[in-house]
Amino acid sequence: MIPLGPGWSRLEEPVAMLRESSSGSSLSRRVDVGRIKLNVREKGQGPLMLFFHGITANSAVFGVLTGELSSRFRTIAVDQRGHGRSDKPDHGYDADDFADDIAALITTLDSGPAIIVGHSLGSRNGVTVAARYPELVRSVVAIDFTPYIEPEVLDALESRVVAGDQVFPDLGSVEAYLAARYPKIPMDAIKVRAASGFHGVEGGLAPLASASAMAQTVTGLRADLVPAFRDVTRPVLVVRGAESKLVTEAALRKTSKLRPDLPVVVVPGADHYVHEEAPGIVLRAITNFVDA
Amino acid sequence: MIPLGPGWSRLEEPVAMLRESSSGSSLSRRVDVGRIKLNVREKGQGPLMLFFHGITANSAVFGVLTGELSSRFRTIAVDQRGHGRSDKPDHGYDADDFADDIAALITTLDSGPAIIVGHSLGSRNGVTVAARYPELVRSVVAIDFTPYIEPEVLDALESRVVAGDQVFPDLGSVEAYLAARYPKIPMDAIKVRAASGFHGVEGGLAPLASASAMAQTVTGLRADLVPAFRDVTRPVLVVRGAESKLVTEAALRKTSKLRPDLPVVVVPGADHYVHEEAPGIVLRAITNFVDA
Repeated sequence: MIPLGPGWSRLEEPVAMLRESSSGSSLSRRVDVGRIKLNVREKGQGPLMLFFHGITANSAVFGVLTGELSSRFRTIAVDQRGHGRSDKPDHGYDADDFADDIAALITTLDSGPAIIVGHSLGSRNGVTVAARYPELVRSVVAIDFTPYIEPEVLDALESRVVAGDQVFPDLGSVEAYLAARYPKIPMDAIKVRAASGFHGVEGGLAPLASASAMAQTVTGLRADLVPAFRDVTRPVLVVRGAESKLVTEAALRKTSKLRPDLPVVVVPGADHYVHEEAPGIVLRAITNFVDA
Repeated sequence: MIPLGPGWSRLEEPVAMLRESSSGSSLSRRVDVGRIKLNVREKGQGPLMLFFHGITANSAVFGVLTGELSSRFRTIAVDQRGHGRSDKPDHGYDADDFADDIAALITTLDSGPAIIVGHSLGSRNGVTVAARYPELVRSVVAIDFTPYIEPEVLDALESRVVAGDQVFPDLGSVEAYLAARYPKIPMDAIKVRAASGFHGVEGGLAPLASASAMAQTVTGLRADLVPAFRDVTRPVLVVRGAESKLVTEAALRKTSKLRPDLPVVVVPGADHYVHEEAPGIVLRAITNFVDA
């Protein structure tokens, strides 16, 4: 399925090809899940596989993954509350708020239990929903977010998130800003972020993500994730970028001590945005996990 | 299923209970797979899950795992060629010989593709059969054997294997010998090895495993495993004992560099005999992998 055959030195070579082959657009629509309306991009048929992005991002960042995986799965990438074209309530940005949205979405779709692929904030939310509602979740691919993230690492994340609340004169300025903020994300993935995450306002382009929601969400990331990770009974694949500045080696080591039974994939050369920086390896890691 | 609920500090506590609850005997029989007759222990119904032991051991070493997993799987633990009560041909102890036995067994059973759980030699054989016959294998749990095992590590293994070819005066002497050889394996698992792996001969008890087969098998372990690991397309879970004297940290690191997409579980406190030393964690690692 994924064109990564023998010859693993070429592991990331086919990615450009992947990007091209997966450019067929997903269907975008808003789903009323009762407690909130969520914007989703849907593609493919099969077992339900849901994708949840990191803070300030949106459902478009999973285009390469869903382009491939939609040949076998019903892939639905979600703009989480406060982000993209989903509702942005004034309050309610803790882990349980996001997790209850996911549970309501799976219940509304009525085709669970779902495989959940989450990045960063989405990883935190995926593990949380699996711990709270095990009957709705088949498994979780938890990309680059674990318990034990150091306070100073979250301070740095908070600074970046707050600094993103700007009006940019044009799309080129957005791309230049994002490329500087995410130096290891390839330019085509930067363009996806720029095109999908901003909208026209007086004076230029502003983030779709709500500044107030981002501030509350980044605060919520500081809550203790140990209980959910410790108690989750559904399978969780822990994925880390080998050069992640968010999940340090020490944080991963402590997480494996908490749950030595959970499988780990460390993606060489990748920083925090593993699915955009090394989609070929992440694709194989996902299929190795869910096909086992 | 596995009685390891919340509270992971108690991770290994229920093992004694596991051992007791799984004492219900498996059915042992010899299966003619065409090219060889293999002795197997079978228990349970469901998807096919096959177990392959390490060098000099036999199918009984998986009793704790199969006792639990047989509630959901058709578990079949195999005496591999040269071992236990299976045939012991004069020659043919390379990776492909063992792998072709496994392929013939799965074909004979006619209920594949099989989940393969292999330890050491069995891990090598599992990855080899998955690389050679992907259509027969669903996935592989590869316990504590990888490419890049250092020659001096294999020298030490060879010395231990050759030294095992002794006649022991009684069962107590066998147990004392095995306890000294495997200092981290609990005594109840040592007793299983002693009771299942030796038979009465003139002067006492001798290993069921053929000395000539063991010598050829240990030589075969030196063959290059990189091609099979590099090219295998079926999911492989790489399991290592954190204190393994067979798979060093360096060997694991090189293996992850070769195949960064393969999930890894490192079991704290365990030496090479991970499934006997920490069966609770290995059980959870297996179910996390195959339930994802």
